[in-house]
Amino acid sequence: MPPPPPAVPGMALAHVDTPALLVDLDAFERNLARMAEAAKAAGVRLRPHAKTHKSPVIARRQIALGAVGACCQKVSEAEILADGGVDDILVSNQIAGTRKLDRLAALACQARVAVCVDDAGNAREVSAAAGRFGAEIGVLVEIDVGSGRCGVAPGPDAVRLAQQVARLPGLRFDGLQAYHGAAQHRRGWDERRDAIAEAAAKVRQTVDGLAAAGLECRTVGGAGTGTYPFEAASGAWNELQVGSYIFMDADYARNRGADGGPVTTFEHALFVLATVMSHPVADRAVVDAGLKALSVESGLPELWQRAGIAYKGAADEHGKLALDGSNAPLGIGDKLLLVPGHCDPTVNLHDWYVGVRGLGTDTARVEAVWPVAARGAMF
Amino acid sequence: MPPPPPAVPGMALAHVDTPALLVDLDAFERNLARMAEAAKAAGVRLRPHAKTHKSPVIARRQIALGAVGACCQKVSEAEILADGGVDDILVSNQIAGTRKLDRLAALACQARVAVCVDDAGNAREVSAAAGRFGAEIGVLVEIDVGSGRCGVAPGPDAVRLAQQVARLPGLRFDGLQAYHGAAQHRRGWDERRDAIAEAAAKVRQTVDGLAAAGLECRTVGGAGTGTYPFEAASGAWNELQVGSYIFMDADYARNRGADGGPVTTFEHALFVLATVMSHPVADRAVVDAGLKALSVESGLPELWQRAGIAYKGAADEHGKLALDGSNAPLGIGDKLLLVPGHCDPTVNLHDWYVGVRGLGTDTARVEAVWPVAARGAMF
Repeated sequence: MPPPPPAVPGMALAHVDTPALLVDLDAFERNLARMAEAAKAAGVRLRPHAKTHKSPVIARRQIALGAVGACCQKVSEAEILADGGVDDILVSNQIAGTRKLDRLAALACQARVAVCVDDAGNAREVSAAAGRFGAEIGVLVEIDVGSGRCGVAPGPDAVRLAQQVARLPGLRFDGLQAYHGAAQHRRGWDERRDAIAEAAAKVRQTVDGLAAAGLECRTVGGAGTGTYPFEAASGAWNELQVGSYIFMDADYARNRGADGGPVTTFEHALFVLATVMSHPVADRAVVDAGLKALSVESGLPELWQRAGIAYKGAADEHGKLALDGSNAPLGIGDKLLLVPGHCDPTVNLHDWYVGVRGLGTDTARVEAVWPVAARGAMF
Repeated sequence: MPPPPPAVPGMALAHVDTPALLVDLDAFERNLARMAEAAKAAGVRLRPHAKTHKSPVIARRQIALGAVGACCQKVSEAEILADGGVDDILVSNQIAGTRKLDRLAALACQARVAVCVDDAGNAREVSAAAGRFGAEIGVLVEIDVGSGRCGVAPGPDAVRLAQQVARLPGLRFDGLQAYHGAAQHRRGWDERRDAIAEAAAKVRQTVDGLAAAGLECRTVGGAGTGTYPFEAASGAWNELQVGSYIFMDADYARNRGADGGPVTTFEHALFVLATVMSHPVADRAVVDAGLKALSVESGLPELWQRAGIAYKGAADEHGKLALDGSNAPLGIGDKLLLVPGHCDPTVNLHDWYVGVRGLGTDTARVEAVWPVAARGAMF
């Protein structure tokens, strides 16, 4: 059983139990709208990544603003999205093994489903599963546009695999998956622009090869919160798979814009609310949010609007704060907002979102408590 | 709802879905027995840390071998342990706030419960909560023996706080909490020995001060898997709070023994079983276990008994493997065992343990599927 939620709607912020995963609903809604407008202005489709939020509630909010569906990384996430009312889902990842592929094919009987493939043998297995269920499964051939992770080489190798996919029963060749994960957190605007320009050349070469082979490439998917302006403007991609923009995190906030300053398009909308539980000496306090409430692999969390306090170390259930003396006095029981270093794996540690309206005002109040429905959905 | 388990008892290992949190039951049981024997030989009590396993099933196994109870870090963990049949629980941490303290006091009506305190105001709050429930709550005064995290200064400050605790209604002064977290992963045997020798001096000074003040110190608790031989032999501690020994992890395996070689007392008994989902080029493959299946903040996982393969990078749902050419051929769908970098936060990512008997043999078979009952219990 999941733990009970740390808040109920209507509760004043001061009464929320900790550690709690807080959403600033005002900032979150502005983030949703800004990305929807950006995609519309660029004339590209938006298929936001549900691996960030793991919530059909949020996916439906994105779809209500024009998104064509959702993407996710796991079959179990796709099942939860479909059960929650999302009917067009891309598993933007390779899926191996009969047990998972049977579930994928079964789901394709309930919703429009696509998956990524970078291997002919795996494509045959997806086809066989589709056959067992009389299902049609969409396929994007994943190409490696610079990340050195999954994906076949762009150009002839990708065209050959696409031809194999197109011939396999039960599969619908939809196009290309061209996500440059390694470019998302390059700090300089120019670095990210140049990485996506190189990736775009690889996409165009492959799309041209597909056309020469008589294969229609309806979808070129990719992009993340760090690079989407480049993919959107390139003409090479037509579907954005951005995820983190809804929440932002401390790591994404370190990316620089065209002028060398911070990127201000999206606001921090996700926080972990923590309580001071120990304050043994003047320059040190300890909060109740450590490694099991925050993912720190992309950097430690940052204090939100609290001068003179820094989060300096995380143990399982302890967060050590350094106080430089310029801070307002802290007491045991005081609550602080932390901006997570990396939003996606932090969300996955929690069972509940606590949506707060008016965060930063005296009337801050819980408006929504949403389950992190696909928390732990790793299968 | 938690995801369904990736296996059922009786299943052959080859059929277990991934990523799965695997326990090698044979190694696990040897680890349990070895620590039980070590504590018995040293004449100290064993109160293993349930923050590692979050499982009443495992806590009861430890108690069956002589442990006096369990410790944990959160009230919600304590509740789950008590519901699961553990009736003597130390929350080895500070608990702040009325909501949590009321739950602690309520639990103290159901089981023998103690908590750590390092602040007089917090002690008064614990006492007030005990009063509201007519409960008695045990208190260990936490002293900082070198970690620089929680805890009052050893000596007079600690004695003063203990006197305050002893006078407060509803509280039972049990003794001292003296855990040296920062010493656990110092690599050299001598470094760890010296750190605990320094800590022991602080404990003795404080115990002497308590005696001079007429306060009985029934319990001095502390120690972890990295240092317990020193605490056990010191005469200063009488209760060991070791956790990781049951599973071991890649980080603990980097500690050195007295001879400069690896510490061989405990065996790796916890693994994440992962599946190869992409193998686009000869020297690179990708498995389905990344940041949401493995905590990497103490180092990346290590391949178990697979030469020539190294886990080189984790993204949310991808683990990138580097193959040096000396490895046996890998195919998509192949399953690999990973030794997590840090066991406690890795366990907390999973909902199920898959207990395997005969791991490493041709007849490896699932014998037990246990819930990670306190997964996500951070309140």
